[in-house]
Amino acid sequence: MPAALSVIAVEGLPEIGRGDDLAGLIAERAELADGDVVVVTQKIVSKAEGRMVAVDPDDESERRALALREAVRVLRRRGELVITETRQGFVCANSGVDLSNVPAGQAALLPEDPDRSARRIRDGLRARSGREVAVVVSDTFGRAWRRGVTDVALGSAGLRPVVDLRGTRDANGRVLVATEICVVDEIASAAELVMGKASGVPVAVVRGVETSWFGEGSVRRDVVRPYGEDLFR
Amino acid sequence: MPAALSVIAVEGLPEIGRGDDLAGLIAERAELADGDVVVVTQKIVSKAEGRMVAVDPDDESERRALALREAVRVLRRRGELVITETRQGFVCANSGVDLSNVPAGQAALLPEDPDRSARRIRDGLRARSGREVAVVVSDTFGRAWRRGVTDVALGSAGLRPVVDLRGTRDANGRVLVATEICVVDEIASAAELVMGKASGVPVAVVRGVETSWFGEGSVRRDVVRPYGEDLFR
Repeated sequence: MPAALSVIAVEGLPEIGRGDDLAGLIAERAELADGDVVVVTQKIVSKAEGRMVAVDPDDESERRALALREAVRVLRRRGELVITETRQGFVCANSGVDLSNVPAGQAALLPEDPDRSARRIRDGLRARSGREVAVVVSDTFGRAWRRGVTDVALGSAGLRPVVDLRGTRDANGRVLVATEICVVDEIASAAELVMGKASGVPVAVVRGVETSWFGEGSVRRDVVRPYGEDLFR
Repeated sequence: MPAALSVIAVEGLPEIGRGDDLAGLIAERAELADGDVVVVTQKIVSKAEGRMVAVDPDDESERRALALREAVRVLRRRGELVITETRQGFVCANSGVDLSNVPAGQAALLPEDPDRSARRIRDGLRARSGREVAVVVSDTFGRAWRRGVTDVALGSAGLRPVVDLRGTRDANGRVLVATEICVVDEIASAAELVMGKASGVPVAVVRGVETSWFGEGSVRRDVVRPYGEDLFR
């Protein structure tokens, strides 16, 4: 049988509010199996964690001030857009402050510590389902040099975020150099394909991920490039 | 039934050489269905198109010269690494010149026109299988701000590379702004998850992609950000 992966939308979740038990709500609606990766979008994590703030949607200066409050550094400005480095270390538009799919007059901030959010959801899923799964908290970011946005991982639990193939040999015996694959970002992107298809679905299960990629790790520590290491800040 | 997607490795392909009929070799080994997206890694496209050049693997200056020959612009240098803009418009390390998984003493250059490569493979798959599929030619690139590499699309045929959700409304009636999802890159990343799992597999089929994403488009035109539009060059 060829290597295969499936990505399944978790449908029927209610509107999420502060204090909601995301793991419980997911476990009730998904038939989880050991080795699944559960991808949860930032928006519902922020809602459950109470990371909502009041904002006048028509007041651009207020939105801008909110983005700057969440930032440690401004990389670029163009018109209404600011590209910032957030307190969590992410480089993204408007510090990830998001006004879509939230109640009118509110904005969702990024989770304070998305790796911790992922660990909590993972612990909750284990308790509710008895399954050993990994969790990725995802968000939609733009990139340098390429148009369009893609989903990436803000946090993870139970996975090695970057799989290091350095030192392994390719099919011709050559030692591979610098092939460190960011599998958590690829998993977030794969999940987005079913979330975008079934619009409004904030959770998906990725089944069939290579078992050797499971383990310890943190997006903050393993994926976010520190300021001094980065060639583009 | 929930929205779902599957990603299936195409196994058993032989070593590819100049002039090989990739579409024929893939069609013999994959049970294609209408609406599938066939993801083909750049390496075998370059081999089939004869984009191999001789290079001394131990001579760093020769490799550097080759990368510069393929570039229109150098963005950054650090040690042995150069980040360039290639003639095809991609920003990547060493102009995408690749010495892994190629015969010793050779290097693979990027396809001259990866969208054209994708169209040819798509036409060949239609002729061989009778199926209407889309094709993505993928490669593994690094990114700004985040560690690790992910697979992205170099070229595509039969898909709208960026799906524009601007003007549509979210679940709360708010008009979404700037939600243009680069689905070809997400499809390339999803495919990499099975290629990385089954090492040495250069082709995967992504099944279940939203049908409204099929259509006309080009990575060069729709994804590659022109020099003047980019905030990070």
